[in-house]
Amino acid sequence: MSEKLLVIGSVAYDCIETPDDSADFILGGSASYAALAASYFAPTIISAVVGNDFKESDIKRLTARSVDISNLQFDSAKPTFFWRGKYHENFNSRETLDVRLNAYEDFKPALDENARNAGFVLLGNISPAVQSAVLDLVREPRFVVLDTMDLWIGTERDDLMKLVRRCDLLIVNDSEAKMLADTSNIIVAGNSLLKLGAESAIVKTGEYGAMLFHKDGFFTIPAYPVASLHDPTGAGDSFAGALAGYLAGCGKTDFASIKLGMLAGAATASMTVESFSCYKLEENGLDEIERRCEYIKKISQIQ
Amino acid sequence: MSEKLLVIGSVAYDCIETPDDSADFILGGSASYAALAASYFAPTIISAVVGNDFKESDIKRLTARSVDISNLQFDSAKPTFFWRGKYHENFNSRETLDVRLNAYEDFKPALDENARNAGFVLLGNISPAVQSAVLDLVREPRFVVLDTMDLWIGTERDDLMKLVRRCDLLIVNDSEAKMLADTSNIIVAGNSLLKLGAESAIVKTGEYGAMLFHKDGFFTIPAYPVASLHDPTGAGDSFAGALAGYLAGCGKTDFASIKLGMLAGAATASMTVESFSCYKLEENGLDEIERRCEYIKKISQIQ
Repeated sequence: MSEKLLVIGSVAYDCIETPDDSADFILGGSASYAALAASYFAPTIISAVVGNDFKESDIKRLTARSVDISNLQFDSAKPTFFWRGKYHENFNSRETLDVRLNAYEDFKPALDENARNAGFVLLGNISPAVQSAVLDLVREPRFVVLDTMDLWIGTERDDLMKLVRRCDLLIVNDSEAKMLADTSNIIVAGNSLLKLGAESAIVKTGEYGAMLFHKDGFFTIPAYPVASLHDPTGAGDSFAGALAGYLAGCGKTDFASIKLGMLAGAATASMTVESFSCYKLEENGLDEIERRCEYIKKISQIQ
Repeated sequence: MSEKLLVIGSVAYDCIETPDDSADFILGGSASYAALAASYFAPTIISAVVGNDFKESDIKRLTARSVDISNLQFDSAKPTFFWRGKYHENFNSRETLDVRLNAYEDFKPALDENARNAGFVLLGNISPAVQSAVLDLVREPRFVVLDTMDLWIGTERDDLMKLVRRCDLLIVNDSEAKMLADTSNIIVAGNSLLKLGAESAIVKTGEYGAMLFHKDGFFTIPAYPVASLHDPTGAGDSFAGALAGYLAGCGKTDFASIKLGMLAGAATASMTVESFSCYKLEENGLDEIERRCEYIKKISQIQ
């Protein structure tokens, strides 16, 4: 039975330079990508703050996908969270050229009754302090997914570790897993994540796919093969959003369901990287997600 | 119906230093790993040369696995091919500290009638000149697998490209594929490999597994999860050996059979890296390979 998913994280304007292209002040942020991805699978509520420069047309992009914006706050005194980043040759590395918290400097999360009663929560990538503050407001979350990044592992490790113990599923990428576990072996790293307190952990491996470490077993899924990489920004957020949305959508949290959630995540994330911002994610729709899910099943079928 | 597999490449003595351990003058070389791996699946003939320091006990390791050594040459004037290598912290990089061709300096491949009639050929990693010279001697190979490395792509690219056009299946790792195709996108790189003239190409992605690019489809397989990495030397050779052995063993070369060959390769290679030299590869046996094949099937099963 479908349950509601609460997505928290950042809503941002990004200026992005890739080896072949650039775009200015496009809708970005972990919560934007995650909520739009989740919206294909479950009723999705977004908790975030935007500033005085936020465009009505970008609000409409969320509501067009039926994302519930009742808990999206507006800060009339400051601009929207801003990030300027550059991908170097071959997308091998990413550099943050400028980051301004803006509206997030004074962000005091507040949730309405509907959001406080959400059964599924995705703590999208943002500081552990903000993630904790929102989680505190949720009454009885059935399943909490935590996404994070190397920045917080480096600067707010203690807060992050406390939060991990309150979560059911931790999502990191391969280098973050190795950093957290202080090992170069991805299998050892993944198994170590389970000892941090979450019941299960997913290690994303970019163009190779993702691995699930769970008390009931180990699982790997390949990435959908993308020949036209345009902008990798938001791939991880879209993966987490579609995964959490899938679980909320079927109201299940077991090993088999998380595997199917990863399938939804891999298919959805592959659309995000084919354009700047969430354009392909919004445009391609559920039919294309389902087609990509079938294709991923096919390419991972041994016999 | 089972056919004979001819494996060519190097037989070497290696001195290896890993972050945790070291070993001196252990049996190594692409043909040793590949032939021992292949021997679990098909009648295997090895073509290589060893020197005046080669130990009887190491000959017995090959014959104990029924590898046909009729085409293994002995050079009484020179020592065996020698390689000294060091894996740096976390196995992130490997450095060749010393390499001596020794017996391979004057290696003139010669094959007996039995070897010349082999239906399946694995051109294991060695110079394209030696690989070509051996392939010239095989009468009517049904299926030729070519394994190579960055060294030859860098130094003997033209010879290598000529050889690729005579082969059915090219095997490289991810960085070599990107180098050959001059792109950072692994999907674009893999598809480009098909344009070089081989009917199919496998891109190995280390701890993540391998991808097959084939005219009949695309396929990915995860690596068997190894928590106790001891020495990665020979993993690629073992993968290629088991794969080629599997195909010769069933006498098939279609897309579905190559997929199953990759399964055999992934399972077998995972044993190689759990010890120095081929010790675990020899010791664990077919039962363990089959167990690992089943496990890989299980962890890649989405539904």
